[in-house]
Amino acid sequence: MSPQVTFHPKGRSIDVPTGTSLLEAAILAGVEVNSACAGKGVCGRCRVVVEGDIDSQNTTHITVEEWASGYRLACLSKIKGDCVVFVPEESQLKPMQIVGGKVSNDLKALSPQVRAVYAKMSPPTLQDNDADLERLQKQLGYEPDELEMSLSLLRELPKVIREGEWTVTAFLDDDILVDIRSWNCVSRNFGVAVDIGTTTVALQLVDLSTGEMIAQASDYNRQLMYGEDVLARIMYGEDNGQERLRFMIVDTINHLLARVCNAGEVCVGKGKKVCAEEIMAVSVAGNTTMMHMLLGLDAKWIRYSPYTPVTNLSPRTNAGELGLNINPHASVHLVPGRASYVGGDIIADVVASGMAKNEGISLLIDVGTNGEVVLGNKDWLLACSASAGPAFEGGEVCHGMRAGDGAIEKVSLKGGVQYSTIGKTRPKGLCGSGLIDLLAQMFLTGVLDKKGHLQPSDRVREGEFGKEYVLVYSKDAEKDGYDIKATGMSCCPTDKVERRRDITVTEEDIANIVRTKASIYAAAEVLLDTAGMSFIDLQHVYIAGGFGHHIDLDNAVAIGLLPDLPRERFTFLGNASLDGAKLCLLSKEKREEALAAHRAMTYVELSTDQRFFDRFSSASFLPHTDLARFPSIEQIRG
Amino acid sequence: MSPQVTFHPKGRSIDVPTGTSLLEAAILAGVEVNSACAGKGVCGRCRVVVEGDIDSQNTTHITVEEWASGYRLACLSKIKGDCVVFVPEESQLKPMQIVGGKVSNDLKALSPQVRAVYAKMSPPTLQDNDADLERLQKQLGYEPDELEMSLSLLRELPKVIREGEWTVTAFLDDDILVDIRSWNCVSRNFGVAVDIGTTTVALQLVDLSTGEMIAQASDYNRQLMYGEDVLARIMYGEDNGQERLRFMIVDTINHLLARVCNAGEVCVGKGKKVCAEEIMAVSVAGNTTMMHMLLGLDAKWIRYSPYTPVTNLSPRTNAGELGLNINPHASVHLVPGRASYVGGDIIADVVASGMAKNEGISLLIDVGTNGEVVLGNKDWLLACSASAGPAFEGGEVCHGMRAGDGAIEKVSLKGGVQYSTIGKTRPKGLCGSGLIDLLAQMFLTGVLDKKGHLQPSDRVREGEFGKEYVLVYSKDAEKDGYDIKATGMSCCPTDKVERRRDITVTEEDIANIVRTKASIYAAAEVLLDTAGMSFIDLQHVYIAGGFGHHIDLDNAVAIGLLPDLPRERFTFLGNASLDGAKLCLLSKEKREEALAAHRAMTYVELSTDQRFFDRFSSASFLPHTDLARFPSIEQIRG
Repeated sequence: MSPQVTFHPKGRSIDVPTGTSLLEAAILAGVEVNSACAGKGVCGRCRVVVEGDIDSQNTTHITVEEWASGYRLACLSKIKGDCVVFVPEESQLKPMQIVGGKVSNDLKALSPQVRAVYAKMSPPTLQDNDADLERLQKQLGYEPDELEMSLSLLRELPKVIREGEWTVTAFLDDDILVDIRSWNCVSRNFGVAVDIGTTTVALQLVDLSTGEMIAQASDYNRQLMYGEDVLARIMYGEDNGQERLRFMIVDTINHLLARVCNAGEVCVGKGKKVCAEEIMAVSVAGNTTMMHMLLGLDAKWIRYSPYTPVTNLSPRTNAGELGLNINPHASVHLVPGRASYVGGDIIADVVASGMAKNEGISLLIDVGTNGEVVLGNKDWLLACSASAGPAFEGGEVCHGMRAGDGAIEKVSLKGGVQYSTIGKTRPKGLCGSGLIDLLAQMFLTGVLDKKGHLQPSDRVREGEFGKEYVLVYSKDAEKDGYDIKATGMSCCPTDKVERRRDITVTEEDIANIVRTKASIYAAAEVLLDTAGMSFIDLQHVYIAGGFGHHIDLDNAVAIGLLPDLPRERFTFLGNASLDGAKLCLLSKEKREEALAAHRAMTYVELSTDQRFFDRFSSASFLPHTDLARFPSIEQIRG
Repeated sequence: MSPQVTFHPKGRSIDVPTGTSLLEAAILAGVEVNSACAGKGVCGRCRVVVEGDIDSQNTTHITVEEWASGYRLACLSKIKGDCVVFVPEESQLKPMQIVGGKVSNDLKALSPQVRAVYAKMSPPTLQDNDADLERLQKQLGYEPDELEMSLSLLRELPKVIREGEWTVTAFLDDDILVDIRSWNCVSRNFGVAVDIGTTTVALQLVDLSTGEMIAQASDYNRQLMYGEDVLARIMYGEDNGQERLRFMIVDTINHLLARVCNAGEVCVGKGKKVCAEEIMAVSVAGNTTMMHMLLGLDAKWIRYSPYTPVTNLSPRTNAGELGLNINPHASVHLVPGRASYVGGDIIADVVASGMAKNEGISLLIDVGTNGEVVLGNKDWLLACSASAGPAFEGGEVCHGMRAGDGAIEKVSLKGGVQYSTIGKTRPKGLCGSGLIDLLAQMFLTGVLDKKGHLQPSDRVREGEFGKEYVLVYSKDAEKDGYDIKATGMSCCPTDKVERRRDITVTEEDIANIVRTKASIYAAAEVLLDTAGMSFIDLQHVYIAGGFGHHIDLDNAVAIGLLPDLPRERFTFLGNASLDGAKLCLLSKEKREEALAAHRAMTYVELSTDQRFFDRFSSASFLPHTDLARFPSIEQIRG
């Protein structure tokens, strides 16, 4: 008899063969367990608490005390007999809020990707017996052979036209007939904008007849099971084929689609439920690897020099071909990308910022896992990828986390430690904006020197991983006003052992953050250098990324992530990629802008650029080797 | 135990449930039996000889003597126990020769539907790391987003490009990438032209790099099982769904494709076998109903007033989507049609004739089942369908047959009966050109009066179906020099009963032929009338159709099928539809000519046109009520 494994808090049980890893069992049971290294025992994200017959390897991710309490890494635990597993919240993959949506409303006119037209034809007579399709084309104002459609739709045409007694609603994507209905439903024309991040997938359901957002949802990218960054995913694909990865991203989107369709029922009001069949258009932004995986294109060559994608431009496709659970004819457009590491997400950022329409020079920074930077104006664009690392998304930092409930997003150290968390819940870690604040505040208050070394202080101690600064003592967390019950731990079978860890930042964490910010700063400098410019020439600096609800500009400047420019030149865009995808969904002008940006953009390869390494070295200090570049900080620190 | 039925001469056996009809059993066994009325016992084409346990209905199609010999109609015979069935040659569906191919060589330059281009790209570097597709597009001279392709092909692209070490052969249909190969195979680019007739399907395999024809084949349209004309097929589709009809036409084409690919092995020489995967383009001409059935479009509305097709223009499709057994990406173009009863076959005729490029006025007559007529020049075209009936294709005439082996194709009565057959085999019946000759000769020698009545003569007798003229006495057939053994009857288990019928033409046959020729002549007159012209204004008269290898113009004028114009103005095109499809396959200019003809053509509906009925009545004589219109005949008959 196969061993039975039960996962809490979901309470799901599954029988699996002896020798199955707990991580595999969790996947089989549909229980989402965080994993960033594809089950190699490296990332330490799949910490679970186990009672039962299990054979586990020990790692440095589990302390001796924790081991005794039943903590194990799910990926390194083989099932021998029945067991009960608890997946702590920190190891769960959970829905997160969408951050962004600041710039979506500057549309002059609505010209959605798919438009609905009510067409009333004259019925045929012996004197006027044109073919059905020709009659429809004529009524819609197309030349006889201009309108295209799938053969499957053409097969439905005569029936629909006659059921509608020669009046129909036609859904048109430029010169493609997407769908046709035998009744007037021009007001039932819906679209979705999707941002496929390596970590998070966010989606908005939009009424294409009004431009109004009906519902939104986001979730972790289910591909996370197979690695945290794009390289890990591509490697997984090389070893195992990409089909599983393609399925996972489609599955993630389909779950979000189901959620927004249900949400739509509530939001749009009675009788206005959005049926998945009524979604006629999808606009997708994502990095080049995600786009390849969605389309089923081999992403392998993105990983190897000279880093060539299969394509940067979306082929013509539809929802049915991709496996999306909406109207199978729905037109799917991908925002074009520029290179393997400057994808459609960055061009969507550009569209959302409007920088490619400005006279003045703008700099755009997307602080994601890679840290892409774009420089330019309406005439030209330069772009590069800084390979910055995921520090501002919570990666490579012990207590780093994504911008979700419990993430410390604001920190101040002047006049004592003060912080606030997303969702006002008990602090669980630090998201990007919290890390920026913390580093800046430590630096400005002298706890941290310019080389990133911690100075003696009452909160600095020797920890398990070297010197560390304690931001939150676990014993204080409750006193700080956060309700421990709100974290949903009460059903834990081993509640007594639930770790109460202090929230700290180590010198190694700090080095990772400094490396990340130095990469981004150096990348921006190389682009400016390429254009024969310097920071002072910048009229606008746009900051995109999901590192928090806000960013404290002074702190970001203090650590040298952003240049020391007048603060009014900065604009924080949040999830601009989703906004860009939505703008493209709603406006032909924006779709053309995206294509123009793809064409105007020159990609600058940094991996072999000596300028980049020189500038990176100089920027690997707080805020920079050359403090004169940061006069406002020089003033404070002296 | 189920009864077993064995069919000869194929020697195939099959077990079927009691009560199955012999016709159904033949279909199940893959034995092709002629049937024109969809098994209703009306057409009398499915005559077979049976020995065994069978329950048959008698009909007028079987004489008392034949009944005694075991002749039955397969459709009216229910199987009760084991039996042996012989399918006489006259009831078999057999491959037939292609007639035509007279005008294919006037191409100025080759610009095939799919062109093969050998593209040598520079391998990517870090300084030039464009996407694979962009690199290919640039090399092929396309703008970045101009070239389209299927997602499935895009998925293969990176592998093929790298296997070819950045040199590939691209197969292009305008701005669509049809396929791509990792080796130089620009000389391995093949296409097929197909003519889908209601009765016959003809196909040519063409080398697209040279324009040379490699092989050709033709066969009966397997849809014949479900009725002889388009109306019977549409009715079958209404009752049973069209999928079976779609399958049958695709199956017919696939069998022909297999044959020409095998033939190619022989024709092109050693090492030059054409593999089905190498066929990149298909150009199809056919009447509107056949096009609908090939595409799976509902043909129902073609049958009902006001006779509207779903479309006259080909949607973008490919071989895989249609189920053709060649390269699934192969581009499929259908020659555009104009109306339900003036299809792509007629526009292919127009292209083959070149009439739409002439300054002078031309008349084109396609003598098929319907008898379509086109009038016009480079500036305008008028077209109509005469609903002429299948007399010239051998239908509605007792001893009529299609232009295949054994068909009498030439007849002369001056100085005694003389005739010749296709294939120089024993005469089995009369094809279109033979019927024209016979009628004209009977009329000119006084055996037939102008009303179509037979006059007393030694070959005129009272037959089973009224007065008839005996062209061939069966007793004379062998004496006439034809080898009875050559007809393949020797394996017949009931050889002794094989019918030796005289070949005759009855007064009713004559009436049917006169009706057919009168329709065509009247239709031409209505078009001329619509254009304010008369026959004398015609500079060219083109005659298309599969009614024989030749047509005797004097005889065709004598019966009033063709106007009495100087004979040098007539051109006999043969199967011009196949030629037109082939021209479109090979030349962009011709494809544009076809589209221009579709646009320039005005359809004239005759079914409600009083002018047509008046002119039809006047033309229902030999050659016409108004003999003055036929001065050359008036001269002979006096």
